[in-house]
Amino acid sequence: MAAGRRTDPIMTSALKPPRVVIVGAGFGGLAAARRLAGRQVDVTMVDRRNHHVFQPLLYQVATAALSPADIAGPIRAILSRAANVRVVLDEVCGVDTGRNVVELTSGAELHYDWLIMATGARHSYFGRDDWSAHAPGLKSIEDAIAIRSKVLLALELAETETDAARRRALLTFVVIGGGPTGVEMAGAIAELARRSVSEDFRSITPHCSRVILMEAGDRLLPSFPETLSAKAERSLRRLGVELRLGAPVKDVGDGHVRLDNKILLAATVVWAAGVEASPAADWLRAAHDGSGRVIVEADLRVPGHQNIFAIGDTAKAMGIDGKAPPAVAPAAKQQGRYVADFILGRAQRPFRYRDFGNFATIGRNQAVITMGSFELSGFVAWLIWSVAHIWFLIGFRSRLSVTITWLWNYLTYQRSARLITGEIACPRPQSLRSQSLERKCA
Amino acid sequence: MAAGRRTDPIMTSALKPPRVVIVGAGFGGLAAARRLAGRQVDVTMVDRRNHHVFQPLLYQVATAALSPADIAGPIRAILSRAANVRVVLDEVCGVDTGRNVVELTSGAELHYDWLIMATGARHSYFGRDDWSAHAPGLKSIEDAIAIRSKVLLALELAETETDAARRRALLTFVVIGGGPTGVEMAGAIAELARRSVSEDFRSITPHCSRVILMEAGDRLLPSFPETLSAKAERSLRRLGVELRLGAPVKDVGDGHVRLDNKILLAATVVWAAGVEASPAADWLRAAHDGSGRVIVEADLRVPGHQNIFAIGDTAKAMGIDGKAPPAVAPAAKQQGRYVADFILGRAQRPFRYRDFGNFATIGRNQAVITMGSFELSGFVAWLIWSVAHIWFLIGFRSRLSVTITWLWNYLTYQRSARLITGEIACPRPQSLRSQSLERKCA
Repeated sequence: MAAGRRTDPIMTSALKPPRVVIVGAGFGGLAAARRLAGRQVDVTMVDRRNHHVFQPLLYQVATAALSPADIAGPIRAILSRAANVRVVLDEVCGVDTGRNVVELTSGAELHYDWLIMATGARHSYFGRDDWSAHAPGLKSIEDAIAIRSKVLLALELAETETDAARRRALLTFVVIGGGPTGVEMAGAIAELARRSVSEDFRSITPHCSRVILMEAGDRLLPSFPETLSAKAERSLRRLGVELRLGAPVKDVGDGHVRLDNKILLAATVVWAAGVEASPAADWLRAAHDGSGRVIVEADLRVPGHQNIFAIGDTAKAMGIDGKAPPAVAPAAKQQGRYVADFILGRAQRPFRYRDFGNFATIGRNQAVITMGSFELSGFVAWLIWSVAHIWFLIGFRSRLSVTITWLWNYLTYQRSARLITGEIACPRPQSLRSQSLERKCA
Repeated sequence: MAAGRRTDPIMTSALKPPRVVIVGAGFGGLAAARRLAGRQVDVTMVDRRNHHVFQPLLYQVATAALSPADIAGPIRAILSRAANVRVVLDEVCGVDTGRNVVELTSGAELHYDWLIMATGARHSYFGRDDWSAHAPGLKSIEDAIAIRSKVLLALELAETETDAARRRALLTFVVIGGGPTGVEMAGAIAELARRSVSEDFRSITPHCSRVILMEAGDRLLPSFPETLSAKAERSLRRLGVELRLGAPVKDVGDGHVRLDNKILLAATVVWAAGVEASPAADWLRAAHDGSGRVIVEADLRVPGHQNIFAIGDTAKAMGIDGKAPPAVAPAAKQQGRYVADFILGRAQRPFRYRDFGNFATIGRNQAVITMGSFELSGFVAWLIWSVAHIWFLIGFRSRLSVTITWLWNYLTYQRSARLITGEIACPRPQSLRSQSLERKCA
């Protein structure tokens, strides 16, 4: 490796290879680790989970189309061949920037010459954390399994519920937030409840389920052009999703959502309305924006810390054009590669985000894509979306397995991973008739 | 349907189709439901889970080779086309045999004309239930995920453990019980720890892990001929499994197993030593054997209850030859079909178990099969085992998916489902050096 090209004083003064600590094995952290693999640096990757999650497909686990292992792989296996990268399962609880040390909850410490914070984002309930118990968000495999269990359990309870109002609430699914995640969740829940399972029940007709997508703003997919928002709205309506635009949620409680003038009874509420950054800014005592994102320089370094970077959803980077890159996987990956190059002495220019387009899918056969001034929607967009997502999946096994599962689901309308696991809440007392209940739209 | 053939007073007196309640969607209950599908009976299947589990492959989920959805499918989907079968997700808490009613924990009741108890078995710790916290057994998807997390977490903790004795304990895996489940678990853990992950760690060499299989009796697989026991022992030793035969366990505690004269330190202990029947005998206030199994007549009816059957692992049936059928899936399936035929007025003879052989597999390329006086072991036995297990998997998707996953695992030695999910216990405090730890057999 061209050590002579390195110009940073921290690197040239070290006799041993410089120690790089990467916190978080999301898209950004993993891209940095891969770029540093095989180089003259000693890399430690810390994550509190043992697996990387392909987040763009998490909603498919939440709606029983894919298994967790289809979209998640052990970080250790992904980085197995990078002999200079060590993977540590632990949780960060602080950073001592004076001593150049990352503090872990196990009590251990990691010394760094370079630190890359790639800790991502988590749900934000805009200060109403009590809503989280009633409206889970979708960030981890556990979140996805919990939502899957909740959706499937609601259908199961509806099957034996004799009270019409309660049955109606069990068959009402609300998604809050009209961004890409909310649109994808609403479309997928509608396909699952209204189509895939509809032959499996005797007392209810899941086809009559209500799926409601709520968005505070006046259109879906605000980050897309208006024409595509309109197409997404039409596609969702065709799937049977009810849209409530300009409908800010006032309260979320056990089994209900309150709008300005109305209470909606729904056993299942999913939160896709907001995220906030991880506590990286607190750990670094760094300046942050309203969402908690660390404000970084043009080269992604944290002001006042010449050897600390923040990337991905946990950073607020101002591009040279004055625009911040969006909170999407490609931006995090590009930033990860950029900081790796910076550490290797190869990146002198400020970081520049290259926009390769923006995707959202709306159930079977429908997606919208925007790429600069280019717009695409419909079946071709959906095919491009499918191929792109399979392509970017990590590991050959997942690609093959997901391809086959998707083909199978597509041809049969089945959902192959309809498992309710974990502690099953005992269904609430109710009178259950042994005879078949009447089949009717509840 | 040949209603004229029915001779039972309960059936002929009913104007409506007789109501059959099946408790438990294991192999026995599902076989009964499938045989009753499309007949002039009104069937209700109750299970406390929404999915049927293909138990013979559960150990492959516990060792990260397969995903839960590969070996489990929604009961509702399996019985979707049987219009006369209703599926209810609920838990049985009692049976009122006077009123012919099954009581559910939801407060609901199910009236029956015929009742089939197919509630299976659970782990038995021989009165030492406190051992269950330290030595989980393998009966459900949750059990398998918990064991998987435990095994993978032990390897993760070993990677950063600097104390040699603790590292040794983390890399010691004990399986208690030398029946088919214990043999399969020990072989699969050895393959996982000693081979599949060995390139992924930096500080430890998982190849040096100890996998110890303990059996109180003097040979493995006591239900197989001695020649096959000997072959299984050789195969396991070749995989690096240590065998402790004639070694009854005296105590199991946090991180250790005590034998007569020795304490073995092991972070991971798996229980495969004993099962006991579900509480069906209590619910029915029926006579049972030492393992809690309901003692049934030659026609599988519970003595004193002309309209109640017990089948599978929850029943003790005495064959006409005086031998009870073994606690395996084929016996449960045959019994399920028999009682369905009985209800349909088609089975007048006592139940007779047809033995199609006995299987156990010992990791890659090795299995033992016995079928009457026919014995087979080695690669061909393993191929037969693989084909048979794929064949009996429920649903086409699972078959295809498992075939591909197995082929992939076989060719690459990889384990594709290495996810630690659920609440991850925070690794205990330890000093962690930032430099690489020396690579040595701990």
